[in-house]
Amino acid sequence: MAYGLLKGKRGIISGALDENSIAWKVALKAKEEGATFTLTNAPIAMRMGAINELAKVCDAQIIPADATSVEDIEKLYTQSMDVLGGKVDFVLHSIGMSANIRKGKEYGDLNYDWYLKSLDVSSLSLHKFLQVAEKMDAINEWGSVVALSYIAAQRTYPFYTDMAEAKAMLESIARSFGYRYGKAKNVRVNTISQSPTKTTAGSGIGGFDAFYEFAEKMSPLGNATADDCANYTISLFSDLTRMVTMQNLFHDGGYSSTGISEELVQMIQNQNKA
Amino acid sequence: MAYGLLKGKRGIISGALDENSIAWKVALKAKEEGATFTLTNAPIAMRMGAINELAKVCDAQIIPADATSVEDIEKLYTQSMDVLGGKVDFVLHSIGMSANIRKGKEYGDLNYDWYLKSLDVSSLSLHKFLQVAEKMDAINEWGSVVALSYIAAQRTYPFYTDMAEAKAMLESIARSFGYRYGKAKNVRVNTISQSPTKTTAGSGIGGFDAFYEFAEKMSPLGNATADDCANYTISLFSDLTRMVTMQNLFHDGGYSSTGISEELVQMIQNQNKA
Amino acid sequence: MAYGLLKGKRGIISGALDENSIAWKVALKAKEEGATFTLTNAPIAMRMGAINELAKVCDAQIIPADATSVEDIEKLYTQSMDVLGGKVDFVLHSIGMSANIRKGKEYGDLNYDWYLKSLDVSSLSLHKFLQVAEKMDAINEWGSVVALSYIAAQRTYPFYTDMAEAKAMLESIARSFGYRYGKAKNVRVNTISQSPTKTTAGSGIGGFDAFYEFAEKMSPLGNATADDCANYTISLFSDLTRMVTMQNLFHDGGYSSTGISEELVQMIQNQNKA
Amino acid sequence: MAYGLLKGKRGIISGALDENSIAWKVALKAKEEGATFTLTNAPIAMRMGAINELAKVCDAQIIPADATSVEDIEKLYTQSMDVLGGKVDFVLHSIGMSANIRKGKEYGDLNYDWYLKSLDVSSLSLHKFLQVAEKMDAINEWGSVVALSYIAAQRTYPFYTDMAEAKAMLESIARSFGYRYGKAKNVRVNTISQSPTKTTAGSGIGGFDAFYEFAEKMSPLGNATADDCANYTISLFSDLTRMVTMQNLFHDGGYSSTGISEELVQMIQNQNKA
Repeated sequence: MAYGLLKGKRGIISGALDENSIAWKVALKAKEEGATFTLTNAPIAMRMGAINELAKVCDAQIIPADATSVEDIEKLYTQSMDVLGGKVDFVLHSIGMSANIRKGKEYGDLNYDWYLKSLDVSSLSLHKFLQVAEKMDAINEWGSVVALSYIAAQRTYPFYTDMAEAKAMLESIARSFGYRYGKAKNVRVNTISQSPTKTTAGSGIGGFDAFYEFAEKMSPLGNATADDCANYTISLFSDLTRMVTMQNLFHDGGYSSTGISEELVQMIQNQNKA
Repeated sequence: MAYGLLKGKRGIISGALDENSIAWKVALKAKEEGATFTLTNAPIAMRMGAINELAKVCDAQIIPADATSVEDIEKLYTQSMDVLGGKVDFVLHSIGMSANIRKGKEYGDLNYDWYLKSLDVSSLSLHKFLQVAEKMDAINEWGSVVALSYIAAQRTYPFYTDMAEAKAMLESIARSFGYRYGKAKNVRVNTISQSPTKTTAGSGIGGFDAFYEFAEKMSPLGNATADDCANYTISLFSDLTRMVTMQNLFHDGGYSSTGISEELVQMIQNQNKA
Repeated sequence: MAYGLLKGKRGIISGALDENSIAWKVALKAKEEGATFTLTNAPIAMRMGAINELAKVCDAQIIPADATSVEDIEKLYTQSMDVLGGKVDFVLHSIGMSANIRKGKEYGDLNYDWYLKSLDVSSLSLHKFLQVAEKMDAINEWGSVVALSYIAAQRTYPFYTDMAEAKAMLESIARSFGYRYGKAKNVRVNTISQSPTKTTAGSGIGGFDAFYEFAEKMSPLGNATADDCANYTISLFSDLTRMVTMQNLFHDGGYSSTGISEELVQMIQNQNKA
Repeated sequence: MAYGLLKGKRGIISGALDENSIAWKVALKAKEEGATFTLTNAPIAMRMGAINELAKVCDAQIIPADATSVEDIEKLYTQSMDVLGGKVDFVLHSIGMSANIRKGKEYGDLNYDWYLKSLDVSSLSLHKFLQVAEKMDAINEWGSVVALSYIAAQRTYPFYTDMAEAKAMLESIARSFGYRYGKAKNVRVNTISQSPTKTTAGSGIGGFDAFYEFAEKMSPLGNATADDCANYTISLFSDLTRMVTMQNLFHDGGYSSTGISEELVQMIQNQNKA
């Protein structure tokens, strides 16, 4: 069901790798809600991704950009404004990568070059997206920037290793730049702290299945899906949420506020009987 | 601008006292977005309020109810379902009262009967709204309950006295019942922690003008108005936010995440020069 | 091992029911650390408790007081100051009771008279302890007040029912009165959010064993014991922590900051194999 | 007044630049409380600092170390264990540096090489201190690691720029490594979120005086001094706090829990009269 919530709005959506990606779903919904936008991803990610298919469905141009490169981001905005016919109203930051996770390095044996790379790609990129945009004045008044985060920024998930710090930093950037851009242009910046999601990226994390199931058992509404997240993101891009800024918003079926669930209690009791 | 976000949805809206009330604005927006609903308030509040006028504009029936009375709340749901033709999809809880504030009692000289009354009216009423609804099965699957809160639940505002505890308790009820109702019927329960708002109720608090101005100076987007709050509430009643539950959501132009603003710095520097 | 941390300090310790009580352990440690103090409890609790034995060991007088009665609390301070020879330096609030839990009422079927009673006994009593003390000027400059809380104030534990709200309110009172008493007399007020503890009170809660075990599995250091909590409380009564106030301090072996533990992951994986 | 709280304990204290440093005060107190320890700082900082004087008073050896260098940190532990005669029981991390702040770069015009350098020096160094220690098994069971943080990790202070992210990351490392080291060796890791402090480092931040004064006005107990912080740190190194881990502990005279103070209200009201 479509409401026209983004009618006339222009945007940039990063991170659509394949049809499991949250960004992919956001693109489809944004299209339905009347937005025009460009798609971006790292050159390397695009080779693997099916992004051309998405671009066709959404009538959207793809602009490859390395999220750590200020120049690439400048081009991204310039070309986006050119293609879309004006400044943008929304930006989705859905970018994250940890070589330490990929290579299965434990938190007590991290490679520090990779660690800094995780931060550069996954967090600092949000600052670059914002600093470049502000300098170029590329986002309209009352525009909305959303970045995807995870509750590992608040609590420890052993297998998530350096991405915990990356997300903590990402949320801090949303606050810090949200203040600045809010004062300057009424642009709002928020993070969505999303349930573990069965995306291609998510599934790459060791022990993912177990903590997906744990979160499912702990959340009264179950884990939020990528589709749910897309809906929520649309609400944050819309004019209904203009005064929400510098927030980390849990979108997780109630997980973050649940201390223990009846399912967990039962699981523990069953185990003790066994 | 209307989107049809609440088309076909039924609801109950409490707390519309006069045209400055947040609940009043929510009613107007809910109507615009296609909802049908009943209005409720304490019998005593209605005598002072202009609620009849609102009822006419919204084509809504008024059902007086004392929010501390389980029987009144039962009648409220029975009559609402009767009038609206089915279970409700959304409930707004916008109810608060402190005799200690009204009578200007300091936090170190509180009257404890009034204190318990503050809690009963302002917080326990939310539990009653939920317990009664669940027992009567009066809220549809994926329904949404929103209660209005204030950041005094997290930080101290000396003049807010016992309402700080009332709001802390309110937010706790939203979490606790959100878990229960989520598991039972996928009903979500959240609180909005709203900027200080120039409502008739808000203005009754001593020192309100100073902390309104303080909040205005601290919020990069300025204080969120009652109209803004109504928009945000609509987004939480809509199907876009189905997986958000048990959350306290700051709707405050960035206030809650701002440590100090440039205006405050300047004010301090000016004062030191003077 | 004793350090003399409370040498010369006078205090009031509530809530010592039997040798499993946290308050019991606090009394023993406070004695070791050089403090003199009075013990208090509800008249009804004392009949069941072995408090006389503790009083003997600690050379402490017992002053029965109903924690909901302002008069009783006034007497408690008057007699304490009389017995101890001056104003007090520390107060331990370890008081909680829910008839709804005792009678096994579910959160969706609470008795509201009992609910208000839970709040009055478990939370409002802290306000009364503080309001009475301030009016009587019964606490020395830089005194320290500690109340025991639980993480149910932040996250939902289904079996904890109305005590969740009681603890949320308790922590709010600590903040609100901490501000006031801090400005007036540099008295600090904090809550300790303690691991589930195998006290006589704790064990009365349904499902306690399962969530004790869950917390044990989730805490890298395991659950904090009553003895550990006594040590921590002493540090908060001492002069080492003079500038800590209005805080809720987790004392839980790391539980509150742990999203998932390896034990939990294993338990889920084992169960799936079975 | 000394209690012997650290009698027989060995430690490493970083960051003592001059007599205004928090680390300087911690060293003096740790000495008083019976500890033996080594002092460390960046080679460059030591040239400016008066650390030799401190070393003499504390009977402590100085071991220069670049906190970004794994090799230097390895040497630091090796030599410390050698000098002190065994594994260490406590570590103070008091290290922070931002070239962006030093050079007066605004948050919307940050230099990204310097940004990564800020993170490397101010945050990643804590991970290195912990990863190296764990690999070398250099910290005793039940050891305690404390790092100094600031509330800019939670709320925005415009002039603090990239140090906000550095502190958010630092606190995340404390949680993540606290989990790991807790399970492995019962070592606890915490951060102290300290009031703005008139240290040589603190004073280098633009607008520092104004926000020092703001914090002073907002804190019911006033800003915590470096001396207060040293006392609190000692309590966290002591055996009284063994079960506190993975926490960020506000040590700020109540600032973090104060929404508005009467002083601020007055300042706003006065200004409006003027």
